[in-house]
Amino acid sequence: MSKVRVHNFAVSLDGFATGEGQTLETPFGHASMRLMQWALGTRTFRGMQGAEGGSGGVDEAMASRWQTGIGAEIMGRNKFGPQRGPWQDEDWKGWWGEDPPFHTPVFVLTHHLRPDLTMQGGTSFHFLDASPAEALEVAREAAGGLDVRIGGGPSTVRDFLAADLIDELHLALVPIVLGRGVRLWDGLEGLEERFDIEAVSTPSGVTHLTLTRST
Amino acid sequence: MSKVRVHNFAVSLDGFATGEGQTLETPFGHASMRLMQWALGTRTFRGMQGAEGGSGGVDEAMASRWQTGIGAEIMGRNKFGPQRGPWQDEDWKGWWGEDPPFHTPVFVLTHHLRPDLTMQGGTSFHFLDASPAEALEVAREAAGGLDVRIGGGPSTVRDFLAADLIDELHLALVPIVLGRGVRLWDGLEGLEERFDIEAVSTPSGVTHLTLTRST
Repeated sequence: MSKVRVHNFAVSLDGFATGEGQTLETPFGHASMRLMQWALGTRTFRGMQGAEGGSGGVDEAMASRWQTGIGAEIMGRNKFGPQRGPWQDEDWKGWWGEDPPFHTPVFVLTHHLRPDLTMQGGTSFHFLDASPAEALEVAREAAGGLDVRIGGGPSTVRDFLAADLIDELHLALVPIVLGRGVRLWDGLEGLEERFDIEAVSTPSGVTHLTLTRST
Repeated sequence: MSKVRVHNFAVSLDGFATGEGQTLETPFGHASMRLMQWALGTRTFRGMQGAEGGSGGVDEAMASRWQTGIGAEIMGRNKFGPQRGPWQDEDWKGWWGEDPPFHTPVFVLTHHLRPDLTMQGGTSFHFLDASPAEALEVAREAAGGLDVRIGGGPSTVRDFLAADLIDELHLALVPIVLGRGVRLWDGLEGLEERFDIEAVSTPSGVTHLTLTRST
């Protein structure tokens, strides 16, 4: 069976995985890019933006697992865009331009459906009003035997964890106190009992936690 | 000037530094000893309980800094005991028996004063109804030029951080989701800006974070 995986998911010391006040200019709200600073210089993240070079250490090793073996992504609507409620403008095609870095089908969970979007480079966006389990069934079918990535944001990852649908979760614990935003951990008491957990800190100051479903 | 330090202060992934429901039998409430598991086998913690042996790795290195150079401790009343409100029974002398591991004056912050307690081994308990800054002044005087430890619990550490009175903070991030209890981080947005921060994970699974006041 293909796995359900989360990668490069950054969380503050106080458990927020994104800030407050998302806008078109600030996808992470008041957190701005502080949760992702560790990743921006890696070869993987530079490559996503069409740039050469980048670091090759442990942060890169962790970041690079993001795309390997992935056949589809599921994301929440707030990862796709800053809009809330019914779509005012179907011109919005996500934050990533004409050639998004996913290169697979991407299923966007929303109560407000709209037509599929076919982007360049193999990415397509499909809008689904579905439970985590239902969405996973659709995404697995689209992934053709490869793994499914749960791409965020925090509410979406939390919902999939609560439904016990995640096999591998890679968190980057960032030593900042955000104070406000969207919490990852609410309602997940005792989560550690379902996973084998490893931690490694790196010179960038973050600590990578890997949670792998216990067998 | 002597330093104000916090050591071996354990926090869950969701930011709780103690559980819910403290009782005489469960000082950490429903968290029981899960936040301190990493420390119990170290030479330092075994020594506190009069036992020989214990581990000598990085967890021990971090744990052992607890007592070095400390001349006084300040603790909250909930670290001293499970009682709330006016003292019903002044026979209570803390969780630690006749010879507590502190071996210095200890100042217990409470609105409900009671006479000093002189214990064996150099520990004495003094009850203070004071602000963090006022308590620190008293404790510094008692510490005779040595450092002052803020011993917890979470509300007390939080109050001293909010008042910007902490010079060194050693946290052990424990990869569990407690779900409920007392949060450390509330009201401390942007705390990282005042500190230099290092992280090191150890084979026990915890990550030690040291926050040292930026100069």
